[in-house]
Amino acid sequence: MIMTRAEVERAASRIAGHVRRTPVAEAAPGLLLKLESLQHSGSFKVRGAFNRVLAAGTVPEAGVIAASGGNHGVAVAYAARALGVRAEIFVPEVCAPVKVAGLRALGAHVTQTGAIFADAYEASAKRAAETGALEVHAYDQADVVAGQGTLGLELLEQARPLGGLDTVLVAVGGGGLVAGVAAALAGEERGPRVVAVEPERIPTLHEALARGGPVPVEVGGVGADALGATRAGRIAFDTARALGVEVVLVGEEAIVEARRALWRDHRVAAEHAGAAALAALRAGAYVPGPGERVAVVVCGGNTDPSTLA
Amino acid sequence: MIMTRAEVERAASRIAGHVRRTPVAEAAPGLLLKLESLQHSGSFKVRGAFNRVLAAGTVPEAGVIAASGGNHGVAVAYAARALGVRAEIFVPEVCAPVKVAGLRALGAHVTQTGAIFADAYEASAKRAAETGALEVHAYDQADVVAGQGTLGLELLEQARPLGGLDTVLVAVGGGGLVAGVAAALAGEERGPRVVAVEPERIPTLHEALARGGPVPVEVGGVGADALGATRAGRIAFDTARALGVEVVLVGEEAIVEARRALWRDHRVAAEHAGAAALAALRAGAYVPGPGERVAVVVCGGNTDPSTLA
Repeated sequence: MIMTRAEVERAASRIAGHVRRTPVAEAAPGLLLKLESLQHSGSFKVRGAFNRVLAAGTVPEAGVIAASGGNHGVAVAYAARALGVRAEIFVPEVCAPVKVAGLRALGAHVTQTGAIFADAYEASAKRAAETGALEVHAYDQADVVAGQGTLGLELLEQARPLGGLDTVLVAVGGGGLVAGVAAALAGEERGPRVVAVEPERIPTLHEALARGGPVPVEVGGVGADALGATRAGRIAFDTARALGVEVVLVGEEAIVEARRALWRDHRVAAEHAGAAALAALRAGAYVPGPGERVAVVVCGGNTDPSTLA
Repeated sequence: MIMTRAEVERAASRIAGHVRRTPVAEAAPGLLLKLESLQHSGSFKVRGAFNRVLAAGTVPEAGVIAASGGNHGVAVAYAARALGVRAEIFVPEVCAPVKVAGLRALGAHVTQTGAIFADAYEASAKRAAETGALEVHAYDQADVVAGQGTLGLELLEQARPLGGLDTVLVAVGGGGLVAGVAAALAGEERGPRVVAVEPERIPTLHEALARGGPVPVEVGGVGADALGATRAGRIAFDTARALGVEVVLVGEEAIVEARRALWRDHRVAAEHAGAAALAALRAGAYVPGPGERVAVVVCGGNTDPSTLA
């Protein structure tokens, strides 16, 4: 399924007032930072969560259900609380106690089960089938991808008075954000192109595009907590292929360095995953042409601040 | 001396391209955060530093000189390096080694002398008289105040498409920022009014306005590292009195709480001083009327990130 701009525009109308219009910082001439790390719940994920729940119209009494010990889980719990519906979040047993406590503080019912994420996900799907709860997938549902894409519409508007944009760099996990943003920008005449940035150690979209479809990849490295999908979503793959999204890969050191630079030079707190897109620029994985105007999406800020400096 | 909008506008032309147009975040309906913590050198101080040096035209061979172990010192060192001139920074002997190292990393010549700040300041003035170096005062020079005021012009422009502004809350140390911002906004027809926010334990402007002129106050508390001027500047006092700037006081706990809230709810890293203006809102020291549109200046982010959470 290829995501469309019309779908993203509908999402934007739905979630208006529920999500923040996050600010854009001019980091250097021709370089914008879209500070989505300042979003409710600390990442872009809340855009998709709100759109999924609001698009459903009536939420079943069993509420919403998701599997994630990371940003997606927090976002679903946040959106559910804001909308006054029940949230069940499934996380693997290894999930850090501080994350479980954070989900519970948002009012979510947390179930810890299974050794790895895939087990928790399976358990959540089984539970949803029993209770009829509304499943909110982390990246491979149309309403979720459309919601994430609203970031792209917002960025377009914000960049216009600042001189416009040629290129947007977006980090990829399962690909929900990059597909949504690519769809949002696809409607623009001579609109900016989207470059997907993946850690070398989590090349889900890169492999999907190389092999003609999503395939499982081994996952590791500093970005794994937030970009650790084991394969690209189907919607992400279809949309990226149809819209000609290019993928560049960045190494571990480049990600660590970019995150430090965001703190040191900008006082922006980013996750490693949130710094991956900037890493592509700083490490030369993506080299803009002369005068090219680039925006980098800083997509998440849920990080231990004591590790920033 | 009363600062004027014309003076601030000249400063804005001078420093354009040298300072960042820092982003504004919509924190809640009717509440904007001006994220000056994302400025070069981590605080607004660099605006005044650039304006002072650029307004001087030719900088003497001895370069520029300032006394400060805090944001002002870093800002002067940053501006001097950017403009290719020598910087001497005087700090008291108790200045933390990490701050001295930071100044040296910016290329500044650092002299540690005297038990308290006043001693370091005196030594710097004496040295300036000997060498002819250009003194950059932390708050009580017209070019410094005009430079800080450029934040106000920027905020006006940024707030316009977001629905405009009724009130701007600004933290006060020596008063350079609040005087500059008040002057910048004074030219606006039905422009926003400026509310100065001071820690109860550093009420320099409050005391100056109450007693008809700057008087020394005892200084302490969490804001002291960045707001720890022992008296208001003359320009700040004259300008605040002439333009009717109101002062509200905030307690220590309110400042600590506001700084935590900035991190928890917005992933914004602020100094205690940088959170003081928000504290006035959160603690009820300033209560906006129905529908009143308020901007809070988050004026500095040079903080130990391990203490944010």
